[in-house]
Amino acid sequence: MSGKPEGVRIRDDFWDRYTDLVRETVIPYQWEALNDRIPDAAPSYAIRNFRIAAGLEAGEYGGMVFQDSDVAKWLEAVGYSLATHPDPELERTADEVIGLIALAQHEDGYLNTYFTVKAPDERWTNLYEAHELYCAGHMMEAAVAYYEATGKRKLLDVVCRFADYIGNVFGEGPGQIRGYDGHQEIELALVKLHRATGEERYLKLARFFIDERGAQPNFLVDETNRRDGRSIWTERRLRPTAADMAYNQADVPVREQTAAVGHSVRAVYMYTAMADLARIAGDRELAEACRRLWANMTRKQMYITGGIGSTHHGEAFTFDYDLPNDTVYAETCASIGLIFFAQRMLKLEPKADYADVMERALYNNVIASMSQDGKHYFYVNPLEVWPEASARNPGRHHVKAVRQKWFGCSCCPPNVARLLSSLHDYVYTADPASDTIYAHLFIGGEARFALAAGPVGLAQQSWLPWEGRVRFELTEAPSAPFALALRIPAWCAGQAALAINGRPAPYETKDGYAVVRRAWALGDVVEWAPELSARLTAAHPDIRANAGKAAVERGPLVYCLEEADNGRPLASLSIPADAKLTAAFEAGLPGGAVVIDAEGRADERDSWQAETAYRPLAERLRPIPVKLRAVPYYLWGNREPGEMTVWVRVSDAAGGKE
Amino acid sequence: MSGKPEGVRIRDDFWDRYTDLVRETVIPYQWEALNDRIPDAAPSYAIRNFRIAAGLEAGEYGGMVFQDSDVAKWLEAVGYSLATHPDPELERTADEVIGLIALAQHEDGYLNTYFTVKAPDERWTNLYEAHELYCAGHMMEAAVAYYEATGKRKLLDVVCRFADYIGNVFGEGPGQIRGYDGHQEIELALVKLHRATGEERYLKLARFFIDERGAQPNFLVDETNRRDGRSIWTERRLRPTAADMAYNQADVPVREQTAAVGHSVRAVYMYTAMADLARIAGDRELAEACRRLWANMTRKQMYITGGIGSTHHGEAFTFDYDLPNDTVYAETCASIGLIFFAQRMLKLEPKADYADVMERALYNNVIASMSQDGKHYFYVNPLEVWPEASARNPGRHHVKAVRQKWFGCSCCPPNVARLLSSLHDYVYTADPASDTIYAHLFIGGEARFALAAGPVGLAQQSWLPWEGRVRFELTEAPSAPFALALRIPAWCAGQAALAINGRPAPYETKDGYAVVRRAWALGDVVEWAPELSARLTAAHPDIRANAGKAAVERGPLVYCLEEADNGRPLASLSIPADAKLTAAFEAGLPGGAVVIDAEGRADERDSWQAETAYRPLAERLRPIPVKLRAVPYYLWGNREPGEMTVWVRVSDAAGGKE
Repeated sequence: MSGKPEGVRIRDDFWDRYTDLVRETVIPYQWEALNDRIPDAAPSYAIRNFRIAAGLEAGEYGGMVFQDSDVAKWLEAVGYSLATHPDPELERTADEVIGLIALAQHEDGYLNTYFTVKAPDERWTNLYEAHELYCAGHMMEAAVAYYEATGKRKLLDVVCRFADYIGNVFGEGPGQIRGYDGHQEIELALVKLHRATGEERYLKLARFFIDERGAQPNFLVDETNRRDGRSIWTERRLRPTAADMAYNQADVPVREQTAAVGHSVRAVYMYTAMADLARIAGDRELAEACRRLWANMTRKQMYITGGIGSTHHGEAFTFDYDLPNDTVYAETCASIGLIFFAQRMLKLEPKADYADVMERALYNNVIASMSQDGKHYFYVNPLEVWPEASARNPGRHHVKAVRQKWFGCSCCPPNVARLLSSLHDYVYTADPASDTIYAHLFIGGEARFALAAGPVGLAQQSWLPWEGRVRFELTEAPSAPFALALRIPAWCAGQAALAINGRPAPYETKDGYAVVRRAWALGDVVEWAPELSARLTAAHPDIRANAGKAAVERGPLVYCLEEADNGRPLASLSIPADAKLTAAFEAGLPGGAVVIDAEGRADERDSWQAETAYRPLAERLRPIPVKLRAVPYYLWGNREPGEMTVWVRVSDAAGGKE
Repeated sequence: MSGKPEGVRIRDDFWDRYTDLVRETVIPYQWEALNDRIPDAAPSYAIRNFRIAAGLEAGEYGGMVFQDSDVAKWLEAVGYSLATHPDPELERTADEVIGLIALAQHEDGYLNTYFTVKAPDERWTNLYEAHELYCAGHMMEAAVAYYEATGKRKLLDVVCRFADYIGNVFGEGPGQIRGYDGHQEIELALVKLHRATGEERYLKLARFFIDERGAQPNFLVDETNRRDGRSIWTERRLRPTAADMAYNQADVPVREQTAAVGHSVRAVYMYTAMADLARIAGDRELAEACRRLWANMTRKQMYITGGIGSTHHGEAFTFDYDLPNDTVYAETCASIGLIFFAQRMLKLEPKADYADVMERALYNNVIASMSQDGKHYFYVNPLEVWPEASARNPGRHHVKAVRQKWFGCSCCPPNVARLLSSLHDYVYTADPASDTIYAHLFIGGEARFALAAGPVGLAQQSWLPWEGRVRFELTEAPSAPFALALRIPAWCAGQAALAINGRPAPYETKDGYAVVRRAWALGDVVEWAPELSARLTAAHPDIRANAGKAAVERGPLVYCLEEADNGRPLASLSIPADAKLTAAFEAGLPGGAVVIDAEGRADERDSWQAETAYRPLAERLRPIPVKLRAVPYYLWGNREPGEMTVWVRVSDAAGGKE
């Protein structure tokens, strides 16, 4: 299936706030940052590097080896933004940057300011560490987004020349490098370039990189040995083994991989490309690998918030069911990559599970990362925070209790910007072959689809995440029948009512979607009401960190307890298994939000002598009844800094049904 | 009070196994290691370094900068061992080593093979990092132990010459270094040297080091700057601040310190010397600082096992109530240092709290560190182990699920050896002024005391830790009255019966001791029966890690659950608050031990679909009744590797008295 609906535009009470924030604040702010104009911030050097590479300015390269990708991600976000919100001034600025990028490109098509300015003789000698193809990939993604938004080919031509050059450098032929990048990204970008240009050779190159990965002898190991272990990160000589390349998902061929391992962003970017290639080529073996990796990652290595990667050491996966809440990593970029992967799997095979996970990551881990002013970010998205431990226990220094100015590290904020400004791409997929439109996310807006049955226009209005109520109206309808498939969210537990033009309507359930195939008329209204109620959720018994605990959820939202509402220590609190959860809209929270209240218990502490660490359990007094208040996880840390926890002790562990 | 009883000798059913192991296995094995004769082990180089420094052999220095201290700790352990178990062959070997050490000493008294062999021009230029006075201190401790055991002065003379030289180098006078070591140790050693020689100048030098520490401007900072930040550990230039010196307890003067901070072994070695000096000089301000630091450390920063130092980053304290069970450090050496400190506080003021902590650290953290063969050790003593996480989550790599061959790192095993071979020094203190003998630990053996009342001989027989039964017999009695003060262990909750010659006897309670002052006769028998029962213990509500959990204890022993008895995951298990705890002797465990059984519950898991991480709490079924078995913590990890936990969920969190 082609999958890409045309001209979706978001108009949604909940999401407009975020997409507006990205357009009005994040993109302009990032532009200032890229130009080193943010007071009190470390300079980015990113635009300056391009000016130096273009010969317009003298100086030394600045920033990380992958600094170019920040410019690319910004341009990509600009592209998405212009697609729905034309802005001539922003477009002019972008065109100037594109002109600069074109000037920095070499005659042979090569484009990378680090190697141009700092190490001109070292092109393609350190794929393992230097992110050379990674930066190329981001520039390709930017070019495609900008081209699709504006129709302007200049950057697309630049990256096509670059891609053609890369296609000459890499391959199985004599004199070609039979290798791949240490950080996956170009693979998914080449698929996009193929989509924009129709050129098969880009697809072939993507498949080459995917299929070479993990082949023996190991390219990244051999390359490192050829450099005698010289590293751009450390003085120490590197002597990696093939097994070490699990960090880069290059220890075994991708088709043989069964569990998510290594650096989590690298992993999900790669899986995304794998799913793309599986779909386009009908590659069943690759599709099977994608399903295996998806299952392992989302069922055994994913936090309830949609966070992945449980250790900050290498920003990596660890192993099944190891999901500590306090020493967690759950990087923002990794959840964004998980959303990319989920979207590609939906294009491969529309199954609600993929969309359930996509929604989970989006409404929780991803938007929690950004402050309500759009200028502060979490890179690590913990499920349990004790601010004093973050400050004073070095094993928890990486877990920040307060969002950091976004320019402190440059990878996550632009990733949030490009995701949210392209949010319209994640709402639907369409299958022209079966004349089916799938609604995966319930986010309001208008969309058009080209089906075999004819063109379809659809306006969605959604009351999510606060109410389980969605309305679709046919704004354009072909005469031939087609199917509308609405996701039955896992959180409604199968309780979802459909009405067409005001009358309850039956539906067929397929792969987690409510499917209605019929002849539609202009103005037809479909009302969709998945039951949305607050609930307590338990974790698998092998997730040691959550034993005896529950999380509060409501619809797509995960909730958390904050010190601001519940005092401290939060660990003293417990919730009865049969607690009545009361939802109420609280206008005082940023943007307004539904909070959940319950009668809970607090371990009493007045009977403790101040200066005793341990005492007989028999001395404890009855716990104290307390009001518990849970707020949406995405809002945590927007009030005074304090403790936060997603998982709460269940005080009636003896209960449960027979 | 002098505090040092004469000629105590251990004969104890429980402890003989350990002291025999040290004498018969650890000391000989360590000798082989020091001589690089252990197959498949990294060489120590320690003896070889002395041979090179002595001019007997050519070669380069090997091992850590503080490698000399391994030889010293071995000699110290040998000294203690010879004091109670003469062994001519061992003594001959020790004498040879002492000859070698004397040969390695410089004309001016200086002694350190690292600086002699590797950096002869850099003496006293890097006190911050190079452990120069630390190594000197260990050699002094060895010399005193060997002298007191054998009467031989050779090593004592060597260290006196060295100490006199150090006294010339360091001080407030012109041309002297007004500084101190980065790793405290010499301070407590100089106090011992004073005890052995009666020389006041050694005490004065110890006090100089203690009083200079943390003074402004900061010596360690200035010294580092004088070297332009050159480091022996890293290529990076160091630019430490005075605040950074909290790691070395040198950020503020010791008298102003209020909480345990920094590297935990450095801290407790320093506190030990502070308590010594406070006692000897009657320094009330210093005594008050000791009490403050003791209170903070033992009431807010100590694990229930007597472990201290909750992070492996810098092997350090973090802050109050931050006692994670899984990412714990709780280094063996730190608990040994805590025992030193407790012993010195008991000499300063006999209060049972010090002995309670000493007993807790000894019976739990310290002896758990050693395997039952004496050849494998834990450096980190966790309270919760998931072997797969230790292997696959880098944040838990430092927590080993299996004891390591002891020569892998050289600090903890020799420290265990010197503590256990001098265990007799920790059982009693005597206060000649008040004619009182304090029994702090209930460990069998014979002891002699010189009181004003006259010489006293006491034979203790103890059934601990299995039975709450201790028997003292007067083997020598003066005609004048004197007092016997028996510790009332915190674990008996005040329930302790005393009988003299078979008849119940009343006693006065003072500072946690049962005091009986009377005229004693040869053959008098005192029976002491502190009630020893299994109990559940809760942690302070601010210790987040233990919320809703309890530990099983019995007498001085902390218990733990192991996978070998209880299956996995242990996190699935819970114990009712009112569980009946049944104690039974289990001969099958190493050495035989009392285990504790209880009826508990296990979260059911059969209803979980294999591939779901999260589900509604309401779907859970009733927990399954299971038999729980707890074994003494000191025995953990002596069967097949598996999970272990000290803290267990309490399943009836609603209970407790009104």
